[in-house]
Amino acid sequence: MSGVRADLRVDLRSDTLTRPTAAMRRAMAEAEVGDDVYAEDPTTNALEARVAGLLGHEAGLFFPTGSLANVLGVRLVVAPGEELLCDALAHVVRAELGAHAVTSGVTTRTWHAPRGLLDDDAVDRVVAMMTPDAGPYLVSTAAVAVEDTHNFGGGTVQPLASLHRLHAATSSAGVALHLDGARLWNAAVVQGADHPGGWQGVVREIGGLVATASVCLSKGLGAPVGSVLVSSAENIARARIWRKRMGGGMRQTGLLAAAGLHALDHHVERLADDHARARRIAEAAAAARPGCTDPAAVETNIVVLDVDDARAFVLAAAERGVALSALGPKTVRLVTHLDVDDEGTDLAVAVLTELLSPRTS
Amino acid sequence: MSGVRADLRVDLRSDTLTRPTAAMRRAMAEAEVGDDVYAEDPTTNALEARVAGLLGHEAGLFFPTGSLANVLGVRLVVAPGEELLCDALAHVVRAELGAHAVTSGVTTRTWHAPRGLLDDDAVDRVVAMMTPDAGPYLVSTAAVAVEDTHNFGGGTVQPLASLHRLHAATSSAGVALHLDGARLWNAAVVQGADHPGGWQGVVREIGGLVATASVCLSKGLGAPVGSVLVSSAENIARARIWRKRMGGGMRQTGLLAAAGLHALDHHVERLADDHARARRIAEAAAAARPGCTDPAAVETNIVVLDVDDARAFVLAAAERGVALSALGPKTVRLVTHLDVDDEGTDLAVAVLTELLSPRTS
Amino acid sequence: MSGVRADLRVDLRSDTLTRPTAAMRRAMAEAEVGDDVYAEDPTTNALEARVAGLLGHEAGLFFPTGSLANVLGVRLVVAPGEELLCDALAHVVRAELGAHAVTSGVTTRTWHAPRGLLDDDAVDRVVAMMTPDAGPYLVSTAAVAVEDTHNFGGGTVQPLASLHRLHAATSSAGVALHLDGARLWNAAVVQGADHPGGWQGVVREIGGLVATASVCLSKGLGAPVGSVLVSSAENIARARIWRKRMGGGMRQTGLLAAAGLHALDHHVERLADDHARARRIAEAAAAARPGCTDPAAVETNIVVLDVDDARAFVLAAAERGVALSALGPKTVRLVTHLDVDDEGTDLAVAVLTELLSPRTS
Amino acid sequence: MSGVRADLRVDLRSDTLTRPTAAMRRAMAEAEVGDDVYAEDPTTNALEARVAGLLGHEAGLFFPTGSLANVLGVRLVVAPGEELLCDALAHVVRAELGAHAVTSGVTTRTWHAPRGLLDDDAVDRVVAMMTPDAGPYLVSTAAVAVEDTHNFGGGTVQPLASLHRLHAATSSAGVALHLDGARLWNAAVVQGADHPGGWQGVVREIGGLVATASVCLSKGLGAPVGSVLVSSAENIARARIWRKRMGGGMRQTGLLAAAGLHALDHHVERLADDHARARRIAEAAAAARPGCTDPAAVETNIVVLDVDDARAFVLAAAERGVALSALGPKTVRLVTHLDVDDEGTDLAVAVLTELLSPRTS
Repeated sequence: MSGVRADLRVDLRSDTLTRPTAAMRRAMAEAEVGDDVYAEDPTTNALEARVAGLLGHEAGLFFPTGSLANVLGVRLVVAPGEELLCDALAHVVRAELGAHAVTSGVTTRTWHAPRGLLDDDAVDRVVAMMTPDAGPYLVSTAAVAVEDTHNFGGGTVQPLASLHRLHAATSSAGVALHLDGARLWNAAVVQGADHPGGWQGVVREIGGLVATASVCLSKGLGAPVGSVLVSSAENIARARIWRKRMGGGMRQTGLLAAAGLHALDHHVERLADDHARARRIAEAAAAARPGCTDPAAVETNIVVLDVDDARAFVLAAAERGVALSALGPKTVRLVTHLDVDDEGTDLAVAVLTELLSPRTS
Repeated sequence: MSGVRADLRVDLRSDTLTRPTAAMRRAMAEAEVGDDVYAEDPTTNALEARVAGLLGHEAGLFFPTGSLANVLGVRLVVAPGEELLCDALAHVVRAELGAHAVTSGVTTRTWHAPRGLLDDDAVDRVVAMMTPDAGPYLVSTAAVAVEDTHNFGGGTVQPLASLHRLHAATSSAGVALHLDGARLWNAAVVQGADHPGGWQGVVREIGGLVATASVCLSKGLGAPVGSVLVSSAENIARARIWRKRMGGGMRQTGLLAAAGLHALDHHVERLADDHARARRIAEAAAAARPGCTDPAAVETNIVVLDVDDARAFVLAAAERGVALSALGPKTVRLVTHLDVDDEGTDLAVAVLTELLSPRTS
Repeated sequence: MSGVRADLRVDLRSDTLTRPTAAMRRAMAEAEVGDDVYAEDPTTNALEARVAGLLGHEAGLFFPTGSLANVLGVRLVVAPGEELLCDALAHVVRAELGAHAVTSGVTTRTWHAPRGLLDDDAVDRVVAMMTPDAGPYLVSTAAVAVEDTHNFGGGTVQPLASLHRLHAATSSAGVALHLDGARLWNAAVVQGADHPGGWQGVVREIGGLVATASVCLSKGLGAPVGSVLVSSAENIARARIWRKRMGGGMRQTGLLAAAGLHALDHHVERLADDHARARRIAEAAAAARPGCTDPAAVETNIVVLDVDDARAFVLAAAERGVALSALGPKTVRLVTHLDVDDEGTDLAVAVLTELLSPRTS
Repeated sequence: MSGVRADLRVDLRSDTLTRPTAAMRRAMAEAEVGDDVYAEDPTTNALEARVAGLLGHEAGLFFPTGSLANVLGVRLVVAPGEELLCDALAHVVRAELGAHAVTSGVTTRTWHAPRGLLDDDAVDRVVAMMTPDAGPYLVSTAAVAVEDTHNFGGGTVQPLASLHRLHAATSSAGVALHLDGARLWNAAVVQGADHPGGWQGVVREIGGLVATASVCLSKGLGAPVGSVLVSSAENIARARIWRKRMGGGMRQTGLLAAAGLHALDHHVERLADDHARARRIAEAAAAARPGCTDPAAVETNIVVLDVDDARAFVLAAAERGVALSALGPKTVRLVTHLDVDDEGTDLAVAVLTELLSPRTS
């Protein structure tokens, strides 16, 4: 670990950890505000319109969290007692603590897909599971949720062609699509490299396939708080009432929305740097211990490592200044983000190389 | 179809269709009754004790339906916002219309198993999905549901060895098992042939592996109404309150319970006849069109047929006096039961043979 | 207590305790049945049509309990997060264990009315509380529930004129009325004495004022199990799905429905006898201890007594062969019904006279 | 209206409309932050400890809204299917859109009290309604909610003596108290004038009477967003999980918490100015039209006016630069707050005087 400053620390537990930059704080401090419960906050209104426009939807609504944006996005398209299908690793069934069941009466069945990848096989499995308008005796599938990029899958980017196939199958069956796009920006930056419309073109193309979508401002984009749900104007009007019912209707949110607007202006394209750093870390890990991760599968800012003992590994890394997450007994996750620079990446590379290399003694 | 009476009809849509026999009606008409909301119905109390004893549990509770017995059996072991795992074809997620989510806030993920069979591979998949006590960020798995026999799987009998393996894995992880034993009697009769304790021994062995179990009196057993939930005395006391809250606390239920007691006395062992008839029908179908069903997989009273057009097939059979169910676009189900005798079986064999045989013209 | 047979007992705890008569058991034993989940039970269909016709509604649906009929009757007219108004003693908020909140997300506010009586003052209070279509910030009142007769109010009969006034106010405001008519038959027999259409005329007149109504067959009418919900055909189609979701969709219910039809044929007009016996008991109680009850307020089959210590009073009465209920620390309730004859009434009169008379020593 | 600047406008619709001051914005811009989902935000932790300390509770938790703080405060003490009692004008049943029923299965009954005032009569009514531990047939009262000051009651301050009486009655019955203290600071400033501990003494005294309490930072205190729930450490640990489940777990909340800390330092005692201005407006209104409001009842920052046509009145005032709220067909509400100075008060006085004075023509 020579060449790395002894006091350096890098926190790779999640991209939710980012702190607002000085410029973002300035934007917040100067934001024009109003009472958003009355829809009178001009900065929030501008953010909602901006995000809706990016996804090609009629309207947007600001939320304190991506979880709540997902819960109400799903509620808009799934009535109590109806079914949402999603993959077994999806954030909506793994990390929202049963909110869809508790607060919306939404029942779920899951398909299985390695890395959460929605490839053609996965689409076939989803379609085979769907039972729309199933009558009075069997549960009716009302919606399918897709996560892009896929968090617990390891930042997986969903293939556009598969999304189109899924959309064709669901729309002809009268089943809605909900997008959990907490990290849609990461997918868009990756796929935008080859897209005539750039990352904006990807966002708009995906937006065109889904009835409801949530996107997050507080992960890779680096805003402190906030997500936006987009859908039709009619749906968003209903969501506004449900947001209040769920206790998510805040007041002078323009301060937070200003951070989101700043992030959209300044922090989207730079996600490519996060992706390159994640790939660099994955390559170092795979070099030190072949098979512990697949660098080719690291498409965005998340790296998943197979280790012998995740808790012990996380502790050892922490002692060396690198904070990681244990996702399972043998699974460690690391995430690059706005607060991880080259120096932090160097430290992560050095520590993982040390911990993963075969012991010679 | 010569040799079959022209006016004969046989209804193979479900074993829920059975009508009480004359002897069962007599037992009902003579039943001693009281107000079961006050736990004062002697016949109901006797039935509850009888079923609890069969499964080796402390207490039982009578329910108007198996669905409600499942909903409260699961609620006893899964708190709002916690997770139940079950297979993707399970009655609890397919045929109870989201009740677990709507009324209990129970969230579900599903594993996939051909025919709903819980073999060793399936047990491994279940165990890999479990996340008990997952802390404040991830959903905690509180219970796993097993269905035996498996309805939409085609009357599949769950291997006792797999149930023991699943029990070992779940109990060491602090995860509860719920048994949807709507057709446990059918499994017990099959497995009882090789069990030192007979069918009663199977019921008791399986009962010993689960925290809560529902069994149905109104399917193969032929009672008009009713299921029993068994568990610990403490759990059943809680279930009694929740039964009232769910609107399932009826009054002079002894009339229905008398039918259940009569069925336990007279209609368990005869399930072997239903199984033989189902096998005979499956063999005829497979002979007429090889591959449309696997007679070796017909372990109990349910036969699943692959056809080109399920709706058209069901209509054609109905015109010939045989009522079947369409379970999916190309899937037909038939079920033998107390009201299907040899003559009805002959009719079904004749009609299926006609409809499934290759057209020669 | 001379003149009363020493071994006689009379159970006045509730009219839910009635046991089916021999004739009713015969009707049940001979009932034609089918699978009511498939709406194929002819006797149940006949009962549903009969009750719907009596109330002048398009359709009816059979339920295992009055609680579930109330829960779904309210659900049909109140969406999750909307408000039901009812009086603070109503069965729907006191004796259904929060089911409307738990299973339907229905929120409630209550008005107060002595004896649960909906007189003109009470109607004014209800109307003042209503906030229909209250916009995105305040809860919207979707329905008002009326209980007739009023159980915890002491069998109170609701004035027809007040029901008409309430209907005028709610219908012009777009607020629905739900009738908890568990004991509507009792009210109808009382008011039918002065009604050109007799008790049937009263039932039809009240039915014309409400969007949904539940009536019970297992209280004064003496059937062992069952209630019927009536409403429009479209509402009842929705209720049928929700009945299954709630676990209330039973199979060969014709056995129970036959008892209901028998009760409607034979047990309505005789409710006048229950009322006369209740009044006789109340008069005896008031004679023994003036002020402990108001005989003039005993309109139907329920008598409420004020005593010093309800538990002690109930115990003392039980020792003397009369079973009563303690409704509160100083409140005792007694209910006459089909299983209470003149001899039982004599016993109740004797015991209450003894227990309520001033001690001379 | 001479003497009032023509371009002046004053917004008296609600004290939620306050915009952060320059000093508050500075405090926010400089706040130290972390990820509050991981409880690592130092400013948020400081705010939670500060508020818990003020109320004498073990722990606090930051919320995006007072509604969510109330929903989870109540959930901590009321299980699904249990009962919360509150007054019929309470924010928890009128302005939280049924959230307690929808998300927690909490059922409610209400008492009536003029101006929401919890005087001795009201306490008696509450106590008479309570049915704690009511057994398996009747709903059990688990908690009572008190609102102080009372919003729809007109900023009513609850008498300390009544709170003590209510606490004595509920605690001996095993019933919990929840405080909706959205405007507790206003009550504390009023009662603190005569309290040995000043406003802090009042807050601590009231805090000592309740199991759970929510207080709001974004109403009179002028912070843009946020409420704090206080209770025992164990309760708050449960609330943290439920906050995530409800979608209320935000990330770098230190920016918002810094505003709250600033408000507690600088904006509590100045609430007396809001109260004086509200009283002045009420006196002017009553002088112009005697009986339209009772200035003596204006204890804090809310004035309720009786007018002939609330909508027309609100429109007329708006045309003259004064924004008010219509609470009912004949009821107008106005609220003073941090953004209302003497000049705005002058305008309100002038406009109300004009609109309420008898027309002379």
